Amino acid sequence: MFIAVDIGGTKTEVALGDKKARVLRTKIIPTKADFTPFLVSLFSIIADFSRDKKIKGISIAAPGPLDPQSGTIFSSPNLRWRNVCIKKIVEERFNLPVLLENDANLAGLGESICGAGKDVSSLFYLTVSTGIGGGFILDKEIYQGVSFDAGEIGHTVVLPDGPLCNCGKRGCLEALCSGRAIAKKARQAVRKHPHSLILRLAGKRREAITAQIVVEALRQNDKLAQQVWQEVCYFLGIGIANMINLVNPEMVVIGGGVSKAGVLLFKPLRKIVREMGWERAVNSCRIVKAKLKNSGIVGALIYASRSPR
Amino acid sequence: MFIAVDIGGTKTEVALGDKKARVLRTKIIPTKADFTPFLVSLFSIIADFSRDKKIKGISIAAPGPLDPQSGTIFSSPNLRWRNVCIKKIVEERFNLPVLLENDANLAGLGESICGAGKDVSSLFYLTVSTGIGGGFILDKEIYQGVSFDAGEIGHTVVLPDGPLCNCGKRGCLEALCSGRAIAKKARQAVRKHPHSLILRLAGKRREAITAQIVVEALRQNDKLAQQVWQEVCYFLGIGIANMINLVNPEMVVIGGGVSKAGVLLFKPLRKIVREMGWERAVNSCRIVKAKLKNSGIVGALIYASRSPR
Repeated sequence: MFIAVDIGGTKTEVALGDKKARVLRTKIIPTKADFTPFLVSLFSIIADFSRDKKIKGISIAAPGPLDPQSGTIFSSPNLRWRNVCIKKIVEERFNLPVLLENDANLAGLGESICGAGKDVSSLFYLTVSTGIGGGFILDKEIYQGVSFDAGEIGHTVVLPDGPLCNCGKRGCLEALCSGRAIAKKARQAVRKHPHSLILRLAGKRREAITAQIVVEALRQNDKLAQQVWQEVCYFLGIGIANMINLVNPEMVVIGGGVSKAGVLLFKPLRKIVREMGWERAVNSCRIVKAKLKNSGIVGALIYASRSPR
Repeated sequence: MFIAVDIGGTKTEVALGDKKARVLRTKIIPTKADFTPFLVSLFSIIADFSRDKKIKGISIAAPGPLDPQSGTIFSSPNLRWRNVCIKKIVEERFNLPVLLENDANLAGLGESICGAGKDVSSLFYLTVSTGIGGGFILDKEIYQGVSFDAGEIGHTVVLPDGPLCNCGKRGCLEALCSGRAIAKKARQAVRKHPHSLILRLAGKRREAITAQIVVEALRQNDKLAQQVWQEVCYFLGIGIANMINLVNPEMVVIGGGVSKAGVLLFKPLRKIVREMGWERAVNSCRIVKAKLKNSGIVGALIYASRSPR
């Protein structure tokens, strides 16, 4: 048995699974802004899951920047964690091998082995949720890169001097197409269009507008939502096309909250990628939706079970 | 012994070398716009080189788009070649195994084994000359990608709606930073600044301005050349930073005519890449100049000698 931990910006999922990455139990806890109380909750679940099971390893998925070798999370958006050596802490508490990896890399591995990418040998996984992350799976393995930072598509610049990103730069893909960016753009747009359905769906409260609401307005053919969405698809298409030109993968798998827009996202996106990418590379690459309920958890279980002990 | 052929936009180099990629003889012929007369010249040199040597294989480097599997060059900038199955033609004529590969991939392989990248296991080779090409070397091998198109950095879009590229899109790296783009930008710039040194160095003839002349004016501290150059470095820096974020290589090796600007290119470029790239990935990556006189020829010899026969 293995334990997988998927640390998200607001909640953390902990799962018990077997070596075939079948999930037997899961539990969700809030990701607390302070590390110590979070650790207390995490420890209690791990202890509970391992009560009458033989646990062989624990694998932790977290958003970057992190260092898998030392097992350190350097910082985490929305959290006050700084340089936490989570691998060592959990290893010492449970006397078990612990792995730390980027969540998008693990989600990519999960989709590659058990999800949308079962039949391909290389894929790029892209998560479009609050932020944007990516992971490149080559020959069914995570391609980590020299400093374990490969796949960082969210901070590729697609619009020089574009909107400010959380990373401090301008015009990153994340600053243009993430859930947070979509909401921000819609909040700005409704100022000039106070009769937009977007604002009505948000109960007339600008600050309540989310990417989900923009997608709901889009489904109801709202003009303003269409404008906002068109730009999102345009820049996301450029970011994906640029990546395909460089990496030439067999498949792009898109997960994360924004991917739930389904055909509303994938149809325009595929068109823009075709227009913007290198013809042969784009024609060899399918762009599909993630298949697994929690690709990160599945990937983390696979990663733990593969690790030599 | 092996024969390497490096087909460039205006000239083609043919070399005889050994299995250690040491070049024994070379000959340069013009790359003719028509394929048949070109082939006649090429055949005569190959025949000459193989007169009293045992040739084991021939390796051909050409600019993309091409298909290494079928050995077809689909088209070539400045040439009227269309879908030429050069591999098969040369194989049948000399009854020898012939390989065709992208020139930037082979140059990357050459630098990786015998040049600037001898001591690293992964590198990205970038050629900035008339056009811009790239190749990714992973564990000392060419990373080809699913359709053999990986590394196509020249057509990543770094300025949406930017200047028109030869490929039909707008704002490709090649349309902003290639030798051709630099010359074009300088020709436009001198219209408003007719007293610029650039124009004087070109003998007062706008159409005679080249990237080389811009670099020469830059060396002499010409203000206009500085403006043109700054923008070139800015966009090239974004393109390289985006690639580093995705591929996270140990080294970027830059070759091609524009790289001859040396410190004038590398100093501002390294600064911009640091500003624009993911901190950890950028800090793990050295950006250096290509070392070999003809990386493509050396890479082609290595490629031929490695190929199973």
